[in-house]
Amino acid sequence: MTKPRKPWGGRFQADTDLEVEAFTSSLDFDQRLFGHDIAGSIAHAKMLARQGIISKREEKSIICALQEIHRDIALGEAVFNPGDEDIHMAVERLLIERIGDAGGKLHTGRSRNDQVALDLRLYLREEIKEIQVRIEALQGVLLALAKEEKDTILPGYTHLQKAQPVLLAHWFLAYWEMLNRDAGRLWDCQKRVNVLPLGVAALAGTSLPLDRAYTAKLLSFPYVSQNSLDTVADRDFVAEFIFCASLLMMHLSRLCEDLILWMSDEFRFIEIGDAFTTGSSIMPQKKNPDVAELIRGKTARVYGNLVALLTLLKGLPMSYNRDLQEDKEPLFDTVDTVTTCLRVLTKMMQNISFNRERMLAQAGRGFSTATDIAEYLVIKGIPFRDAHGIVGRIVRYCLDGNKTLGDLTLEEFRTFYPGFEEDIFKCIDVETSVRSKRVIGGTSHEAVAARLKAMEQER
Amino acid sequence: MTKPRKPWGGRFQADTDLEVEAFTSSLDFDQRLFGHDIAGSIAHAKMLARQGIISKREEKSIICALQEIHRDIALGEAVFNPGDEDIHMAVERLLIERIGDAGGKLHTGRSRNDQVALDLRLYLREEIKEIQVRIEALQGVLLALAKEEKDTILPGYTHLQKAQPVLLAHWFLAYWEMLNRDAGRLWDCQKRVNVLPLGVAALAGTSLPLDRAYTAKLLSFPYVSQNSLDTVADRDFVAEFIFCASLLMMHLSRLCEDLILWMSDEFRFIEIGDAFTTGSSIMPQKKNPDVAELIRGKTARVYGNLVALLTLLKGLPMSYNRDLQEDKEPLFDTVDTVTTCLRVLTKMMQNISFNRERMLAQAGRGFSTATDIAEYLVIKGIPFRDAHGIVGRIVRYCLDGNKTLGDLTLEEFRTFYPGFEEDIFKCIDVETSVRSKRVIGGTSHEAVAARLKAMEQER
Amino acid sequence: MTKPRKPWGGRFQADTDLEVEAFTSSLDFDQRLFGHDIAGSIAHAKMLARQGIISKREEKSIICALQEIHRDIALGEAVFNPGDEDIHMAVERLLIERIGDAGGKLHTGRSRNDQVALDLRLYLREEIKEIQVRIEALQGVLLALAKEEKDTILPGYTHLQKAQPVLLAHWFLAYWEMLNRDAGRLWDCQKRVNVLPLGVAALAGTSLPLDRAYTAKLLSFPYVSQNSLDTVADRDFVAEFIFCASLLMMHLSRLCEDLILWMSDEFRFIEIGDAFTTGSSIMPQKKNPDVAELIRGKTARVYGNLVALLTLLKGLPMSYNRDLQEDKEPLFDTVDTVTTCLRVLTKMMQNISFNRERMLAQAGRGFSTATDIAEYLVIKGIPFRDAHGIVGRIVRYCLDGNKTLGDLTLEEFRTFYPGFEEDIFKCIDVETSVRSKRVIGGTSHEAVAARLKAMEQER
Amino acid sequence: MTKPRKPWGGRFQADTDLEVEAFTSSLDFDQRLFGHDIAGSIAHAKMLARQGIISKREEKSIICALQEIHRDIALGEAVFNPGDEDIHMAVERLLIERIGDAGGKLHTGRSRNDQVALDLRLYLREEIKEIQVRIEALQGVLLALAKEEKDTILPGYTHLQKAQPVLLAHWFLAYWEMLNRDAGRLWDCQKRVNVLPLGVAALAGTSLPLDRAYTAKLLSFPYVSQNSLDTVADRDFVAEFIFCASLLMMHLSRLCEDLILWMSDEFRFIEIGDAFTTGSSIMPQKKNPDVAELIRGKTARVYGNLVALLTLLKGLPMSYNRDLQEDKEPLFDTVDTVTTCLRVLTKMMQNISFNRERMLAQAGRGFSTATDIAEYLVIKGIPFRDAHGIVGRIVRYCLDGNKTLGDLTLEEFRTFYPGFEEDIFKCIDVETSVRSKRVIGGTSHEAVAARLKAMEQER
Repeated sequence: MTKPRKPWGGRFQADTDLEVEAFTSSLDFDQRLFGHDIAGSIAHAKMLARQGIISKREEKSIICALQEIHRDIALGEAVFNPGDEDIHMAVERLLIERIGDAGGKLHTGRSRNDQVALDLRLYLREEIKEIQVRIEALQGVLLALAKEEKDTILPGYTHLQKAQPVLLAHWFLAYWEMLNRDAGRLWDCQKRVNVLPLGVAALAGTSLPLDRAYTAKLLSFPYVSQNSLDTVADRDFVAEFIFCASLLMMHLSRLCEDLILWMSDEFRFIEIGDAFTTGSSIMPQKKNPDVAELIRGKTARVYGNLVALLTLLKGLPMSYNRDLQEDKEPLFDTVDTVTTCLRVLTKMMQNISFNRERMLAQAGRGFSTATDIAEYLVIKGIPFRDAHGIVGRIVRYCLDGNKTLGDLTLEEFRTFYPGFEEDIFKCIDVETSVRSKRVIGGTSHEAVAARLKAMEQER
Repeated sequence: MTKPRKPWGGRFQADTDLEVEAFTSSLDFDQRLFGHDIAGSIAHAKMLARQGIISKREEKSIICALQEIHRDIALGEAVFNPGDEDIHMAVERLLIERIGDAGGKLHTGRSRNDQVALDLRLYLREEIKEIQVRIEALQGVLLALAKEEKDTILPGYTHLQKAQPVLLAHWFLAYWEMLNRDAGRLWDCQKRVNVLPLGVAALAGTSLPLDRAYTAKLLSFPYVSQNSLDTVADRDFVAEFIFCASLLMMHLSRLCEDLILWMSDEFRFIEIGDAFTTGSSIMPQKKNPDVAELIRGKTARVYGNLVALLTLLKGLPMSYNRDLQEDKEPLFDTVDTVTTCLRVLTKMMQNISFNRERMLAQAGRGFSTATDIAEYLVIKGIPFRDAHGIVGRIVRYCLDGNKTLGDLTLEEFRTFYPGFEEDIFKCIDVETSVRSKRVIGGTSHEAVAARLKAMEQER
Repeated sequence: MTKPRKPWGGRFQADTDLEVEAFTSSLDFDQRLFGHDIAGSIAHAKMLARQGIISKREEKSIICALQEIHRDIALGEAVFNPGDEDIHMAVERLLIERIGDAGGKLHTGRSRNDQVALDLRLYLREEIKEIQVRIEALQGVLLALAKEEKDTILPGYTHLQKAQPVLLAHWFLAYWEMLNRDAGRLWDCQKRVNVLPLGVAALAGTSLPLDRAYTAKLLSFPYVSQNSLDTVADRDFVAEFIFCASLLMMHLSRLCEDLILWMSDEFRFIEIGDAFTTGSSIMPQKKNPDVAELIRGKTARVYGNLVALLTLLKGLPMSYNRDLQEDKEPLFDTVDTVTTCLRVLTKMMQNISFNRERMLAQAGRGFSTATDIAEYLVIKGIPFRDAHGIVGRIVRYCLDGNKTLGDLTLEEFRTFYPGFEEDIFKCIDVETSVRSKRVIGGTSHEAVAARLKAMEQER
Repeated sequence: MTKPRKPWGGRFQADTDLEVEAFTSSLDFDQRLFGHDIAGSIAHAKMLARQGIISKREEKSIICALQEIHRDIALGEAVFNPGDEDIHMAVERLLIERIGDAGGKLHTGRSRNDQVALDLRLYLREEIKEIQVRIEALQGVLLALAKEEKDTILPGYTHLQKAQPVLLAHWFLAYWEMLNRDAGRLWDCQKRVNVLPLGVAALAGTSLPLDRAYTAKLLSFPYVSQNSLDTVADRDFVAEFIFCASLLMMHLSRLCEDLILWMSDEFRFIEIGDAFTTGSSIMPQKKNPDVAELIRGKTARVYGNLVALLTLLKGLPMSYNRDLQEDKEPLFDTVDTVTTCLRVLTKMMQNISFNRERMLAQAGRGFSTATDIAEYLVIKGIPFRDAHGIVGRIVRYCLDGNKTLGDLTLEEFRTFYPGFEEDIFKCIDVETSVRSKRVIGGTSHEAVAARLKAMEQER
């Protein structure tokens, strides 16, 4: 019998079918992990040497060769074989080709099961940090815009119906809050990513005297996983990250929905710069908010990735199953989608001009200060439920007579409730309405300024 | 002002931001549609010429150049620009570069909205046909295996507990039935794919005298879409296809689950050929059913694609929105996944050996003919519910005495019901049990053979 | 040992834990199947009698008692026990309580596995018919509205940007087309629902001489299932129905999205009747399109049900597994959601008034006839791509000068292209624009009227 | 005109359509919030009084009446009206009926938008605590079982193939670790649940001098929400909880998958007590692990709920939209499913007997100590990759000769590598193999005992 082609082929009599080789290979997509794979292997080699499992000379030779391989892959000079299966086997093969026997010692006390878990955790740990930086950047832009537009008044909506006037700054900061929760969730998720899996080997641990705490120290992991069966089967951290990304994308989708509405001819609240819009192949007048639409649309793919991950994991028996190989593409796609969307959106937000006059004019429509009248009546001692009824009838009267609140005379007001005074006209003013919402979290200039200040200190 | 870089750039003052260009471009993934795009354009050109909108000479020049472009792209010799946005604009640019003005006439009476819908439908129509061929191939293998194993007896399970003995052939044919429903669903889906969208232009139709029926004829579409707003906004056919693929993958996942169980050391019902399994990087004895696990796992990604599509479409206002660009990647990934899984599984099924002795031995365990005794008693006139009770107590008696049904004497049987006769021993025989299930759809040799015959005629 | 409480308890030594009993019971939700369960049992009894498995007297007694039980359950007079597990066991218990031994014979040659499949198929078959009636009703209202608003012009949108003017009737009919596809899909699904499962018993068939074809005839099933293993494990038809419902809800969500936009103060295209809107507990002026929002929102739950079903089925081994009990609640919830949404929406559509003047005025904005100018130039022989460029520059000129297309003089037009004639002014008229879209599927009065006529004949 | 039926009906001319009333009402499902609604209202009343917005007498009267209403609802004595819309309006109506004008003052400075957010947060905060208690209970049982089975050896699997022997205790603790992460995630989620929304009113805040910090103190909220727009639109906390529940259920599904496998006749590792299994209506011998199957199946519905929530939220414009009403049923269903599954599973785990002999016997099969031989060779200085190859060939040799590792003589071993010594026989012993896995997280008795000790201290 000829030598089997696979490093694990000792007990096999036939070579892997070529189509099966292609089907089971993950090299196409997992080669993006090469840097993390090599970093993990270097730490592993150092630990093996420290424990006397390999010699100092072997350690040096391994590390040196791994560094060269790293450089070669980074430069696109390493050649992968179709039979390499995955980045781990590819690196090991390259290593053995370069340094022979010593290379064959690297895979001591570990399996691909704990190795891939390590690579994924190193990768994701880094990407989460990067995403947090980008969230902060977007938050920074929102904060700057909030300052710039600190007096701009916007109609506030519920049910897409005009509800009450609010500050545009308040709207920016609403998204700041959402992003802040996203950052918090990622922070919590990072704790569960930041656990060393290496050293549990296939599923049971190893009989060799590994020092996992030392490996953890070398790779800056604050925690070491505590159960080998769980360690190789655990993809919770991937699912949790994709969930965090799903909520983040959901927030971006809401922001984009607002922008799309606002850029419509009916709203006309904003103009997005030419460089951030595209045209139509047939309609010469079109200028479309494609970026916002695409971000809204890309939310769907991240949701799809989450469903893929959760479906994958349900009902799998202990411990590692090959199904888990399918964890990578949804993860990578999610990371790429989120980072790109954050970057493009951050840039676009800085290329929007806000039509302050239009916003203000619209903020006064739709009886948007009706609630202020009700609250005015509450101050006069009317139970709120009755005050609501009175104002409802005033609105009805206006609708029937095609009037606005501002068109009413004091006499007309008094037909609904005799206690109305001159100050009612102040009360229905849009600016006054906004200024009056002084409660914590309210939209008044004062409350918003206070929050802005706190935000700047939080960062 | 310099000439804008984009063909639609007339009304724009600034060029598209480069990052936005990359973000909104679909060329990376939609170039796989180039053949369909060009086929559609050729049909469109012919129709334009026939309607006198372009001249015969222009038609000829366009078609000729498109054929060259097709060849160049196929050979990898066409050069795409970063600014091409999508395959449609790339082809148009290449065309205009080659033949000038005439090329600029091709996009008459159409927009990318109907063009991309056309490309997708042409693409999917072809892929559905291909998938149906592969389903048939797998069905063919199942049918052949059913014939080969026509006398092999297998334990049938419910709740993963031994239930009643069945024929292995019956098990193969169960999957044949599922695949048959899948083929039927794809057939139905194909009707709704097979509708010409081209000619509705952006969303409203066109003022130019297009002959859509002629285009449909050229492209072999039996139907022409009937509402322009709907036509450019409709991705039902994509979602329906991905759903059909989801059920298909679900069926494969169930088949693979059975194979994984059967290859475990505990079941030992099958051996999968070395060429269709892989080993472990650490455990030298391992031979793993990776292909089956991966197919089971890949079901999850197709589900994810379905969720992505459905999420994408929900709540979009009329008519085309850029979100729809996100339809392609889930579709392409689904097509690739399904076609590959079908091919690999078909091949693997032919490389499995079935351990007939073990299956038979196991089929007799777990009191698997207990129901036959109950039915024996029904024939004797005992109400089924009482017969069930009697047999339940017999089983209890065996469990307590650590006996099997075959260990019981006639006297012992008669302590539970005096009417038992010698023929009870025949009745508890596994082979007899299987042979007796003669009802339509039952597992008897006779019923299975009848169904096999019908299947061969159906094909 | 005391008699076990359960009809299947013969081999058990301990009673079911009460909490487990509650946990595993499906009676709470599956009792809605009682009518179908009894109808199936009556057919089964008739078949058993015809085959001589039960006597004519027993048949009569069983049927008679089942009819009484049906009436009692319908009137709420039947008493279910906590230990009944499911509707099948509940009905059997009531039957045996009433007629004793004969009742114990009903469950001959069947198991709950095929029985519940039968009940579900009978139930769903009926509900699909009902849903099709409701789809038709909504289509009817859309068609009637299309006739009423046959001259109303609406701005057509892509990317929520004004694109080209269209007929409101065309918009109604776009949804008619979507619903038509939904009806077609349900029709196809119904074929796969309409298959008799009864008679395959637990998973293997039965040794008793059942006549499944006769049962099928009694219950009006055109097909009989052909593989017992598949029959008890198959929930494809449930998943397929929920998918059809998902696309249907998606269509309703898009319609509702349009309505919500149109009812906003910015659009003001429609007014929804007071009876179909609700107010705010705090803001006295509010009138919200809650119904439309809820339908949009309820789309999400149907998607969730689809995911639940698909997740449930993935990777289950052959054949029946108890997981399948979880099929019912998502199915029932989907049926209820879809039927209610269709009914309420149909009613609401008849209580909307369309603001024709506003729609028309808006239809002319946003250079919505720019494409018509380009097509005008095509007729003059300009390649479309150049025509697009010329019109793009005209739009740019207007934007810079704050003009509309209608403001331009012929001289101004001619600075962009000398061939413009007086008829250009006709061409940019909104009404002319709409009338010119005569292509099949276009928005012209003519094309829409033709489609309307065809629709009325289709029904 | 007659008085409108609705408290918000002032501006309306027609009553709500009855079908619309039923369609939009949430009272059927949100009445489970009544206790939280009333608790929130009592705190709100206290705050209003403290701020002088209502009098002390009014406060007293309101609180007193609310407490009565609480009692009446709890006892089922309160009568809800079809027109009540939701639990908030129902309670307000009952209050006004009892105490008149003062009752009408309660809804001052709040809307249902912030009120329902409060109720949900109060409800979920409580349920999360309860779920954490139940997780701990299950962890406690796992820990106790781990102690009981501290010497039981189990075959460890990867790819459902025997891999290496492990301790059963280690398997229990693997699930303990998963549950521990679940508890951690819920803890993190709780931080984001535990934020007071009340007092931001509809979307803008209020002009009335509310003291939100005081309300927060009364209701034990450590945080007060900081942006009114965000507060009424935020359902992140619901989605996050359902995600945490999804992962938790996924873990339970894996545990149940193992139990289902183990209870199969092929594995026979466990016996589940009669009280926790059920039988078959047709097959008298069956004893099915229904509880485990149902828990595995119910995972699917929680996933469905997550998808429903995420789909619901995507692309909603600011701020509150009625779609959000659809948040409750998925949340309630998730809470109910998770709490029940945890309780039933905890109980069932205590009613399983573990077949130690069978587990041990199986643990030695499948060359499960092959890796130990490779590690033995590593100690002898053979590079791991070569050691793997040698052992692979030994396994091949055994397979060809139908031998086990234990059947080999030292001479046979030495044909593969001359350095084998007598101690190789010790090395391939299952017990030795387990004992040797001393690395942190490994399966040795020592490592497991250390972890057990740490766990007990952690709690």
